[in-house]
Amino acid sequence: MEQRLTFLTIGVTDLKAMRAFYKEKFGWTPSKEDDYDGIAFFKLNGIVLGLFPADELAEDAGVAQDGAGTFKRMTMAINMRSEKEVDEAFAALKAKGVTITKAPEKVFWGGYRGYVADIENNLWEIAYNPFMEMDAEGNVSKV
Amino acid sequence: MEQRLTFLTIGVTDLKAMRAFYKEKFGWTPSKEDDYDGIAFFKLNGIVLGLFPADELAEDAGVAQDGAGTFKRMTMAINMRSEKEVDEAFAALKAKGVTITKAPEKVFWGGYRGYVADIENNLWEIAYNPFMEMDAEGNVSKV
Repeated sequence: MEQRLTFLTIGVTDLKAMRAFYKEKFGWTPSKEDDYDGIAFFKLNGIVLGLFPADELAEDAGVAQDGAGTFKRMTMAINMRSEKEVDEAFAALKAKGVTITKAPEKVFWGGYRGYVADIENNLWEIAYNPFMEMDAEGNVSKV
Repeated sequence: MEQRLTFLTIGVTDLKAMRAFYKEKFGWTPSKEDDYDGIAFFKLNGIVLGLFPADELAEDAGVAQDGAGTFKRMTMAINMRSEKEVDEAFAALKAKGVTITKAPEKVFWGGYRGYVADIENNLWEIAYNPFMEMDAEGNVSKV
C-alpha cells in the first residue's frame, strides 16, 4: 500500500462555527463542496482537511463515538520557512483572538515552534524545522 | 496563512508496537529518524505521519492529556484509483489480521469505501472517489 494520506477528517461538534474558524482565523478558503451544509473541505497541499460531525464520522466508520476529553491524542503541524514566519503567524492569530496553548520557542530538536488551538481544542503546531525540506507547494520533499 | 499540512502526529500508547503495525501491516517504510527510539516518522505524499507518545505530545503542546475513549474524533483516508484497488487493499489487510470496522461498500456520495483500525483504534478509511483527482504522487489535484 502506498505511503499516502488523502483526507484528514476532524470530527466536530459545531460544523458551522468550526468552518467559520478556519475561514476567518486561519484565512483559508473552503472548497465549493462546502455548499453542502453537512460537511466542509479545505484543500491543503496534496491532501484535504475535512470537518464532519463527530457522531456521523463514527457512524461512517462503524464505531461508537466514545471519544471524550479535550485532547484528541493527535496534533497537526504547519511548517513555515523561517522563525520569522512562525512569529508572524502567531502575531496574526493572536490579533484575531485565537487561543495559544504554547508560545513559539526554540526546542531541543533544533527547531522553533508553538501551538494554537481551534475552538474545539484541535491543536495546530506552527513550526520552523531547519532539517526539513519543502517544495514550492509546501510538500515535504525530505525528512 | 497558506492552506498547508506538514505533519500529522498521532499520540500513541505503545510506540514500538504502533511503529511495527505500520511497517508490517501497511507495509510502510519509516524515515531514518526512526532510529531515535522516542518517535517514528513515515513520509507520505507531501506530509509526514508521526507517532509520538500521547502524554509527551500533550506536554509538547502545553495541554493536559485528558483524552479518553477509543474514538479519537478524527479519521484518516487513503484514496485509491479504483474500487478494485480498494478491494485488493482490504483483502491484503484482512490476510494480515488487521481489524476491519467497516467492509468496503458503495456510499451515498457516489464513492466506495471501508475502514480499518490500527492496534490503538486509529481509523483509516480506504476509498475510491470518482469525483476526486490525484496526481502521480498521490497528491490531491482537484476536489
